Amino acid sequence: MFRRTHQTLQNKKKIVVLGGGFGGIYVAMHLQKMLKKIPDYEIVLVNRDNYFVYQPMLADVIGGSVDVLDTVSAIRPLLPKTNLFVREIEAINLEKRMITLAPQFSHTPYCLEYDKLVIAMGNVTDFRGMTGIHEHALPFKNLADSFTIRNQIIDAIESASVETDPELRKKLLTFVVGGGGFSGTEAVAEMNDLVRHMVKEYPSIDPKEVRVILVHSKDRVLNREMSEKLGIYAQNLLLKRGVEIMFNKRLHSATPEEAILDDGTRIPSKTIVSTVPSTPNPLIEAMEELPKTKGKIETDRGLQVKGMENIWALGDCAMVPMADGSFSPPTAQFAIRQAKTVAKNIVASINNTQKCEFNFKALGMLGALGHHRAVAEILGMRFSGIFAWFLWRGIYLMKLPGFARKIKVGVAWALDSFVSRDAVQLKMNSSSGIAPLHYEEGETIFKEGDIGDFLYIIVKGRVAIEKDGHTLAELGQGEYFGEMALLNQKARSATVKCLEATDVLALRKREFGLLISNFEQLKSQFEETDRKRSSSIFGDPPQSKLG
Amino acid sequence: MFRRTHQTLQNKKKIVVLGGGFGGIYVAMHLQKMLKKIPDYEIVLVNRDNYFVYQPMLADVIGGSVDVLDTVSAIRPLLPKTNLFVREIEAINLEKRMITLAPQFSHTPYCLEYDKLVIAMGNVTDFRGMTGIHEHALPFKNLADSFTIRNQIIDAIESASVETDPELRKKLLTFVVGGGGFSGTEAVAEMNDLVRHMVKEYPSIDPKEVRVILVHSKDRVLNREMSEKLGIYAQNLLLKRGVEIMFNKRLHSATPEEAILDDGTRIPSKTIVSTVPSTPNPLIEAMEELPKTKGKIETDRGLQVKGMENIWALGDCAMVPMADGSFSPPTAQFAIRQAKTVAKNIVASINNTQKCEFNFKALGMLGALGHHRAVAEILGMRFSGIFAWFLWRGIYLMKLPGFARKIKVGVAWALDSFVSRDAVQLKMNSSSGIAPLHYEEGETIFKEGDIGDFLYIIVKGRVAIEKDGHTLAELGQGEYFGEMALLNQKARSATVKCLEATDVLALRKREFGLLISNFEQLKSQFEETDRKRSSSIFGDPPQSKLG
Repeated sequence: MFRRTHQTLQNKKKIVVLGGGFGGIYVAMHLQKMLKKIPDYEIVLVNRDNYFVYQPMLADVIGGSVDVLDTVSAIRPLLPKTNLFVREIEAINLEKRMITLAPQFSHTPYCLEYDKLVIAMGNVTDFRGMTGIHEHALPFKNLADSFTIRNQIIDAIESASVETDPELRKKLLTFVVGGGGFSGTEAVAEMNDLVRHMVKEYPSIDPKEVRVILVHSKDRVLNREMSEKLGIYAQNLLLKRGVEIMFNKRLHSATPEEAILDDGTRIPSKTIVSTVPSTPNPLIEAMEELPKTKGKIETDRGLQVKGMENIWALGDCAMVPMADGSFSPPTAQFAIRQAKTVAKNIVASINNTQKCEFNFKALGMLGALGHHRAVAEILGMRFSGIFAWFLWRGIYLMKLPGFARKIKVGVAWALDSFVSRDAVQLKMNSSSGIAPLHYEEGETIFKEGDIGDFLYIIVKGRVAIEKDGHTLAELGQGEYFGEMALLNQKARSATVKCLEATDVLALRKREFGLLISNFEQLKSQFEETDRKRSSSIFGDPPQSKLG
Repeated sequence: MFRRTHQTLQNKKKIVVLGGGFGGIYVAMHLQKMLKKIPDYEIVLVNRDNYFVYQPMLADVIGGSVDVLDTVSAIRPLLPKTNLFVREIEAINLEKRMITLAPQFSHTPYCLEYDKLVIAMGNVTDFRGMTGIHEHALPFKNLADSFTIRNQIIDAIESASVETDPELRKKLLTFVVGGGGFSGTEAVAEMNDLVRHMVKEYPSIDPKEVRVILVHSKDRVLNREMSEKLGIYAQNLLLKRGVEIMFNKRLHSATPEEAILDDGTRIPSKTIVSTVPSTPNPLIEAMEELPKTKGKIETDRGLQVKGMENIWALGDCAMVPMADGSFSPPTAQFAIRQAKTVAKNIVASINNTQKCEFNFKALGMLGALGHHRAVAEILGMRFSGIFAWFLWRGIYLMKLPGFARKIKVGVAWALDSFVSRDAVQLKMNSSSGIAPLHYEEGETIFKEGDIGDFLYIIVKGRVAIEKDGHTLAELGQGEYFGEMALLNQKARSATVKCLEATDVLALRKREFGLLISNFEQLKSQFEETDRKRSSSIFGDPPQSKLG
């Protein structure tokens, strides 16, 4: 494979930091300050974005109380002495000490060799094993997710405002969040604020039609993060604002039409957000030589990976032991402090000096609850309500880099109370043309008379093609349907219902068109099927099989 | 087809306005004020977004000097007495007086009947007839376009900063804009500012490597929009800031690797922006019963469509005659004034009173040139430089709805001089998995050793598969290549070059995987091809044909 290395990397040895979250950014920041002690080395940071996201503010983006760009800081000005690579990581080869970066604007990968490696790759959302959640629930993890959730809510309300079908209306006005930890409660609080604020402007929507539901597996929210008193305070605040909380239940599966809980409860909804499961980065999973517990990289008390010279791990992807035998929790506070230890120990390992051990006691916990309210536990003291909210915003403002920026954001926030939130929705060019969908037994994929916008291929399950109450055919794995309306540019001529839980691939009209107009074989195959089915639906002698 | 009508639409007669640009929004605003005069009617506005974009600020979004949300206003608060439908329009049936709106969250279309119709649908970007422009040039027309151009520039610079291949580096650091009218000059000015400002932070990029090129078909910029003196002023300002201007040339075609001008000049570039061609909305084209000139709807002097009772047209999609026999130019100033006439005449047609005729003389012209400079011609006076820029921003601020918002935006702008622009790039979930691409003769689609990220299907043209300098095969229309690396998860085993101008469809790895893992026939076909080709490439007796 053709290899490239960077011309500006000055033939120095390289400390490569993977990941630009709190852990990675702070390691690079501390290393920069100590560069004089390690003159033979340079710092390289690899991250998929050129900005750093202040994660705790993501929920505020949903509600729109914070400008999108105010939650992020460009990395380059923060790290002027670091070589930043804005790339996806394709592979990590510990044996060859080589990181392969994904190509961009070309197909040639980029290879980066390291002398010292820092793994701070966090974790990723993982919906494996939860049927349909990957396909139909929105994750809440990064900035794009916040934006997507916000847009989805605005879309749903816009649509509901002109919808006359009572069933669809109900689905559009029901919003479900799975998981009552920090991110779940913050997300549901902001979503609830946005929805209830928005519907006031829609005379056609009765506020009583709106349901915002939090599904939580325990009997109170924030059970792991906050003391009982503050957890209850947060919970009561949510309830008072109109959030329904379903306790001791879990989000189990999702379809385009409903959320299904582990006890079988079905909640018809078009907007399902899941904050629950996260799993280590697949790249970390793939490195079998790393010692791991529950998928997290095991380190010693100096954050060096167990049994590995020259590799350190920190943050959410690492299992870091502390003095009292417990492990560091996966929070920003800890990642930031771990970063300092990592930087010191890398310098110590280069200069053969004394290494240090990581220890830290949490200062406290803060959680925002939307609408100028928050809960906080700091240095043993508990705060709630508007004071905790000011504390929350104040701490954020302190951390914002740049004086003028602080003023700008501060002014924006101060004015926020006077300026009503515009529910403006920026539509970006959307989604892939081939989407996997999951339906449960009895659900309808499309109805006779609907617009033909997708072709469907059955991946798993069985469907019935129905017309005028009669079943015309049953289709199973590998078979497809919906091509008739696409080929003939007309409305659906039959209804398709799922006979069991069914996974399908949906090809959008445009992509279907591109494929069949260019793929001769495919086209004739579709036309043949169409011919057979048409004659069956429109009165010719029925056939036993329509596949 | 199942029909739905709105429950909150109170059995009144409907004035339906199509399009939420300057024309449509102002028609609805004027009608709202006159609702008392037409008690039997209600107003309906259909627009694809729930916000109104202040088009003249779009270029500023590229440069980042204006927050995205400051260029838009939510429509609902502007039009509290109007029924807003946020939908795409699927079809317009003038005979049945019916508008079909695209389904959302369901597959069922929505039908809207009208009594009075206002067409204010503007025009759309049209690259037909320009090879590869649709596929590889970025349009500059709406908010998402500005955002995309900004992201593309940031991506290109990030990539260039670590690129060692001199050819690719050159392509990454060359930015081409086609068209020297208002939008082209504004776009190139902002792009140039952004690029030159950004590269200062990249020690690995020499500012001399950067080229920003404006291609214009005439011998000076803004030739139609501005007097010679101001046009020359604008032009000199651009030149002084480092923009290259190629006069008397047109952008003719584009590939993933270069821009090609009508005189054959080839400019290697990864970032090509085209501001030139626009054409009426296809929905207007489809209505053959409408009288049209050059695709624009012909109206009388009262903006009523010629020969059509109850239908009015205005803005960029209409051909509106004025007192002196000339036609209204397609600018916001005119659309806003036309809107008032349309609203008055609708009310007059309902009440059978005297209709009025449209007339207006342009107040002047304003064009921003980035970096606190602009040109203006107002009421016969000419301004240029920083004063014109303040005028430009001042007029915008005046038009912003809401007092607190004015202050917020004003403060943000004032601080802009102190706060350096963060080149933060928000990546949204990207693009379709099936993309049409255009290559010119001699260009390379991929090289041996590259990462296998796409499967290609040839739509038109011929390619050669080469290895070690030998041609292994030639492929033509309907044939595909690139499946080997995808099936076997390895690097490309050969190089593919275009023997003539070639159009291909590229299927991304993920979508290819979804298709073949679910489409048994396709899979076995690909595997068979792969088997044949492998044996040919890896030393088995050569075959005459590898298709």
